[in-house]
Amino acid sequence: MLEIATRLARDELAPRASQYDRDARNPVDSWRALAGAGLLGVAIPRAHGGVALDMPTYVGVIRTLAGACASTAMTLHMHSTVMRFIDALGTDAQKARYFPEVVTRGKLFGSWGSEPAVSLSRTFVMETAIRERGDGWVIDGVKHFCTMALGASYSMVWCALDGGGDMAKALLLALVPAGAHGMTTDGRWDTLGMRGTYSPSVTFTGVRVGADATLGLPGAAVQVGVIESFALGYAAVYVGIAEAALDFALQFLRKRVVKPENVSVAQDPTVQRHVGEMAVRLDAARLVLEQSAAGWDAADIVERGLLANRAKYLATEVGLEVTSRVIQTVGGRGAYRDFVAERAFRDMRTATLMPPTTDRMLETIGKSALGLTEGMFRVAGGRAGA
Amino acid sequence: MLEIATRLARDELAPRASQYDRDARNPVDSWRALAGAGLLGVAIPRAHGGVALDMPTYVGVIRTLAGACASTAMTLHMHSTVMRFIDALGTDAQKARYFPEVVTRGKLFGSWGSEPAVSLSRTFVMETAIRERGDGWVIDGVKHFCTMALGASYSMVWCALDGGGDMAKALLLALVPAGAHGMTTDGRWDTLGMRGTYSPSVTFTGVRVGADATLGLPGAAVQVGVIESFALGYAAVYVGIAEAALDFALQFLRKRVVKPENVSVAQDPTVQRHVGEMAVRLDAARLVLEQSAAGWDAADIVERGLLANRAKYLATEVGLEVTSRVIQTVGGRGAYRDFVAERAFRDMRTATLMPPTTDRMLETIGKSALGLTEGMFRVAGGRAGA
Amino acid sequence: MLEIATRLARDELAPRASQYDRDARNPVDSWRALAGAGLLGVAIPRAHGGVALDMPTYVGVIRTLAGACASTAMTLHMHSTVMRFIDALGTDAQKARYFPEVVTRGKLFGSWGSEPAVSLSRTFVMETAIRERGDGWVIDGVKHFCTMALGASYSMVWCALDGGGDMAKALLLALVPAGAHGMTTDGRWDTLGMRGTYSPSVTFTGVRVGADATLGLPGAAVQVGVIESFALGYAAVYVGIAEAALDFALQFLRKRVVKPENVSVAQDPTVQRHVGEMAVRLDAARLVLEQSAAGWDAADIVERGLLANRAKYLATEVGLEVTSRVIQTVGGRGAYRDFVAERAFRDMRTATLMPPTTDRMLETIGKSALGLTEGMFRVAGGRAGA
Amino acid sequence: MLEIATRLARDELAPRASQYDRDARNPVDSWRALAGAGLLGVAIPRAHGGVALDMPTYVGVIRTLAGACASTAMTLHMHSTVMRFIDALGTDAQKARYFPEVVTRGKLFGSWGSEPAVSLSRTFVMETAIRERGDGWVIDGVKHFCTMALGASYSMVWCALDGGGDMAKALLLALVPAGAHGMTTDGRWDTLGMRGTYSPSVTFTGVRVGADATLGLPGAAVQVGVIESFALGYAAVYVGIAEAALDFALQFLRKRVVKPENVSVAQDPTVQRHVGEMAVRLDAARLVLEQSAAGWDAADIVERGLLANRAKYLATEVGLEVTSRVIQTVGGRGAYRDFVAERAFRDMRTATLMPPTTDRMLETIGKSALGLTEGMFRVAGGRAGA
Repeated sequence: MLEIATRLARDELAPRASQYDRDARNPVDSWRALAGAGLLGVAIPRAHGGVALDMPTYVGVIRTLAGACASTAMTLHMHSTVMRFIDALGTDAQKARYFPEVVTRGKLFGSWGSEPAVSLSRTFVMETAIRERGDGWVIDGVKHFCTMALGASYSMVWCALDGGGDMAKALLLALVPAGAHGMTTDGRWDTLGMRGTYSPSVTFTGVRVGADATLGLPGAAVQVGVIESFALGYAAVYVGIAEAALDFALQFLRKRVVKPENVSVAQDPTVQRHVGEMAVRLDAARLVLEQSAAGWDAADIVERGLLANRAKYLATEVGLEVTSRVIQTVGGRGAYRDFVAERAFRDMRTATLMPPTTDRMLETIGKSALGLTEGMFRVAGGRAGA
Repeated sequence: MLEIATRLARDELAPRASQYDRDARNPVDSWRALAGAGLLGVAIPRAHGGVALDMPTYVGVIRTLAGACASTAMTLHMHSTVMRFIDALGTDAQKARYFPEVVTRGKLFGSWGSEPAVSLSRTFVMETAIRERGDGWVIDGVKHFCTMALGASYSMVWCALDGGGDMAKALLLALVPAGAHGMTTDGRWDTLGMRGTYSPSVTFTGVRVGADATLGLPGAAVQVGVIESFALGYAAVYVGIAEAALDFALQFLRKRVVKPENVSVAQDPTVQRHVGEMAVRLDAARLVLEQSAAGWDAADIVERGLLANRAKYLATEVGLEVTSRVIQTVGGRGAYRDFVAERAFRDMRTATLMPPTTDRMLETIGKSALGLTEGMFRVAGGRAGA
Repeated sequence: MLEIATRLARDELAPRASQYDRDARNPVDSWRALAGAGLLGVAIPRAHGGVALDMPTYVGVIRTLAGACASTAMTLHMHSTVMRFIDALGTDAQKARYFPEVVTRGKLFGSWGSEPAVSLSRTFVMETAIRERGDGWVIDGVKHFCTMALGASYSMVWCALDGGGDMAKALLLALVPAGAHGMTTDGRWDTLGMRGTYSPSVTFTGVRVGADATLGLPGAAVQVGVIESFALGYAAVYVGIAEAALDFALQFLRKRVVKPENVSVAQDPTVQRHVGEMAVRLDAARLVLEQSAAGWDAADIVERGLLANRAKYLATEVGLEVTSRVIQTVGGRGAYRDFVAERAFRDMRTATLMPPTTDRMLETIGKSALGLTEGMFRVAGGRAGA
Repeated sequence: MLEIATRLARDELAPRASQYDRDARNPVDSWRALAGAGLLGVAIPRAHGGVALDMPTYVGVIRTLAGACASTAMTLHMHSTVMRFIDALGTDAQKARYFPEVVTRGKLFGSWGSEPAVSLSRTFVMETAIRERGDGWVIDGVKHFCTMALGASYSMVWCALDGGGDMAKALLLALVPAGAHGMTTDGRWDTLGMRGTYSPSVTFTGVRVGADATLGLPGAAVQVGVIESFALGYAAVYVGIAEAALDFALQFLRKRVVKPENVSVAQDPTVQRHVGEMAVRLDAARLVLEQSAAGWDAADIVERGLLANRAKYLATEVGLEVTSRVIQTVGGRGAYRDFVAERAFRDMRTATLMPPTTDRMLETIGKSALGLTEGMFRVAGGRAGA
């Protein structure tokens, strides 16, 4: 499967990445290539027609794709994480309904959690409310950064039951079909990077969904060890972007010749030193990512939170540093849009804003080291596992 | 004059900056505003109709303008440095010819020094050749990053007399009018940032200029303490960009409220810490910049090289850090093109690629501390003052 | 006065510094040299026989002495800050009593503020209590890091009136003579660095002092802009230590020759780069220190807090980095006790633990930038100026 | 074996470490404990009575011991690396002669390579000369940092055959018994840290050893993939020291209570953040170390150089940061000699000076990434595998 990803990355994603970036449009043709190769089902059980990759392979696939088109890799990861939630929380009927949409019809699912006021908080809380109404549900609220707002066939919307404040009891994920009545988007998505994710704000005004649109019992979503996999996949995206940027720099530095000495730039000890620092730190981030993925299945929820935070924190720090230093080391040419380093730099600075923030990751890791174990998210009114 | 710059920055440059950035076009209307206020003559002697700002005021003007539109500030600085060269090296006849073009007709001058193979070298060398031909000169070569390629009325082209390799004897600056026969540009300028400088490559093929087009004797340009002022002005641009980015973050963080606590983000000690680190380092870079400018007139060439390197190095490091951390601290909104932080981040990463590189600056500073005094540029075949 | 300090540093302090460090003993002979040159009165008004240095000169003297013996410089600074408190808060009678002890009899005064439980807090609080008893006062409590515990003739002890928790109303400074009944020290002072300050813990058990032993009204000590000068002087000590360490490295690197190339280590661009980074950052810290000192007199209490925090923060960061990198750049010899770098490394790591901590400094600077102005110390039950 | 190491570390090494540090004396009683448990034979083949640990276990043992007494761990590692050289280069007769000295008589072997002029060079060269004389060899030269100068029974001295400059042909390792005629030491060993290694300079003046005292053919020592293991073991020492320092900080921060809030310092998000940064980076360095050890057996010489450099570079950076920040986070108490953090800080700054330097490591890693593969050491007159 890694070989397939490598081929798709090179032949399908890379050639289109620049145009999707310019247009700030979802990479629909690249998605089609993923669907054709079965990659939309990487997190769907084999029993339901997917390929159910183990976590190390999954992380390798995301990382490989991200090197060619970070937006494609990121949207595949969001989609796949929704698949994990359906697998963990869904009823047999729900699985039988949604998985074939992906496997046979190539549909994508988004996950919309961000809200205007919550991302910097130390407490995990949602203001978008879901309430029972007749034989279904009604949703009201505003979501930010709604990835694939115009491209996904379904979005998994993070809601609070009856607007409750304690997520351990109130969190409820609802699958909303594209074009549901009452959903409107501001269409604003003109950002620094990750432009191919197309993630504007979406307002829900009395959006009605069926009784079977929600996944599991209220609060269950923080108890199943799936939320944590978001951050692990982000780390894979960052490592992939940084590897592509560094590869570009290595090619460039080997070829470029300095006058009047007429030697390759690569012969300069100062350049070697820059490359050495980038290579060794990126290597460490990749190793930690792989180790975290390798330990995933055996880890409980708290451990998963730590594994994911550790990987994401290191990938964030290294990714930001490498993509910036690549441009510095290459010089003026590195800032040309013709070259991959330019997009890598913008994508990384944008992608690393995905929650949890660096501050929250460090606090979580620090608490664990200090014996104050808690999950990845602090839940108002107490502590939840996730 | 600082008050004028503050007003122009707010009323004229800032409103247009985003559009010039998108279009990758020279800020001609902003230039017109500068011309109207007399700012094109900031480095022209009063005797020739300029305002001849002292270096601290000059640096303050560039820094102020850069906070509104970095491309406008950078092009004004390039232009002004050409004025300094004309003042230092030009004959009375040359001054009488060129200064009025600026003062009364609002013309701009570019300075084209970069070349494909030299920017990473430890030795200062030019491959573009200038040769005497009949009663004038002929120029052949390729220049990169030709700022204002389509906007400047004249470009000051850095050449080597007869293609000589020892810049202490061969360097010759030639003023070439826009549209001279034999000048062609590849028109390629689609970069990460500083897009308003419009700086494509230009090829010179047998370009003829008059006998009076060159400034001073061969090699003289490295002896007059003007080259060094490039870097000081770059530092002013970086500090100005970073200040604007930090100001944006401060406004944002004061207004944004965290749920469910309902307190301003600014109340969070972690946020205060981020802001504190940015503020104190930027403050230090600004102080060093001001001190370097204050000591400029009394400094000899070697000292100017150190003052400029010191200021540029610190402004580079701080500028890159602040513009990146502003986006991180603000979160997802900071990556929206609507906000100033996004352009500041791209402009900074691009602007800090202007020579000398960080590596060369550190080596020069280190040599000085180690008693191996030399000028800002090492000249093949020996050491020059500059 | 700076020339005198330079001479004393070289001839008196430097030769003795290593032995005081080994013995963890107060530098009594170096103090005697300071007294002989009138340096114990640098913060005493001329009317009372002192030399009342302006703040820039004062900072220069402390920095110069610190390069030779950090413990001597630090103890002089503690003593001088007590002199400032007496000058600001003392009655004429108190000034007439204490200043001559210093000017004519060479006495030193310590300042004992640290307590077991408070140094990491965001709120400024003292647990050592002072109560009126008969016609005097009685003090009970425990003080940590009592600098010059066996060398000072008086200690200025930071107390809370009647054990009150709101320092804006309760803080009271009491001058306690050495050997007062009820004062006992644990004598424990075997530390990494700053060993010459001899700063063990001291317990006060019903220590009685006279009615005139306290300075000013309760709470007044945070209102006079003197507390802030502690941090400014610490910054001067750090810069002085780091300058001495870097000077040592420069001497060493110039002389050392690399085989088989037989060139000075100083010719290596990598070494130049290390030196360049150290030199430029230390230069910036020194400039900021000098600027902060230059603005001192005109600054109000809040501004003094910022000036001092800014200087101390930068000096802390740079000082720790320079003293560590000097050893790394010099190599194994730098770790020999024979050389100044070894002590500089230990002294810096210890001296930078003096309050306020890096975290509190950054938060204070950040608050100010965010418009949440407050003084250097937060006082329980409200905000005080200092 | 890791359990034995853990027990020895706690019961034998830790209680004695402080005294050896003060005395700057070899940890002879701790060595005796190691010998008793068979740990002196960790790198000796089972056929010769050793326990021949695989590299991951070996690294774990060194790391575990270093947490208790870095000098004991470092000397065991030097000794064990000599055992690897004897195993790789020695004749059957040499193995039969030297291994039993260790296994049955508890002897230790030092490795003396450092020389006054070579450690900063990019070329690997030795000035200590070995020449054939009669039926044996004679050695002349000066060695620095001769670890266990008075404690080892044999030292493996790095020599150049006939003073040749090309180490690929001239390097010859000679085993010299303690007390050989013509060996004199300056006895100078009063350093910042790693004091228990007792590593003064030793001068060789016509020191005669037998014909069978040298290991392998000239130049062979750089071809067997053993030199590289020095750096891997150093990395283990650094990680072990840093882990012990961080453990101390965690214990301290959990217990310490802040007034007036009366909460554990560990509850402070700023403290959690510091701990988080230290923990996650140290975790990464440990993972990389373990991975490098796991890949050791299958790696060729060039790969071993990279594995070792990668591990040592990361451990160096993290180790220096963690030991310094532990003191900062703990505050004044962390600088007391009573606590482990103080020695950890000194030991780390000293131990990380062991070759190769950070600069050389980065250049080697950079060259490899740039496709300029070469071994860990550059050999004059060409490139050797190691």
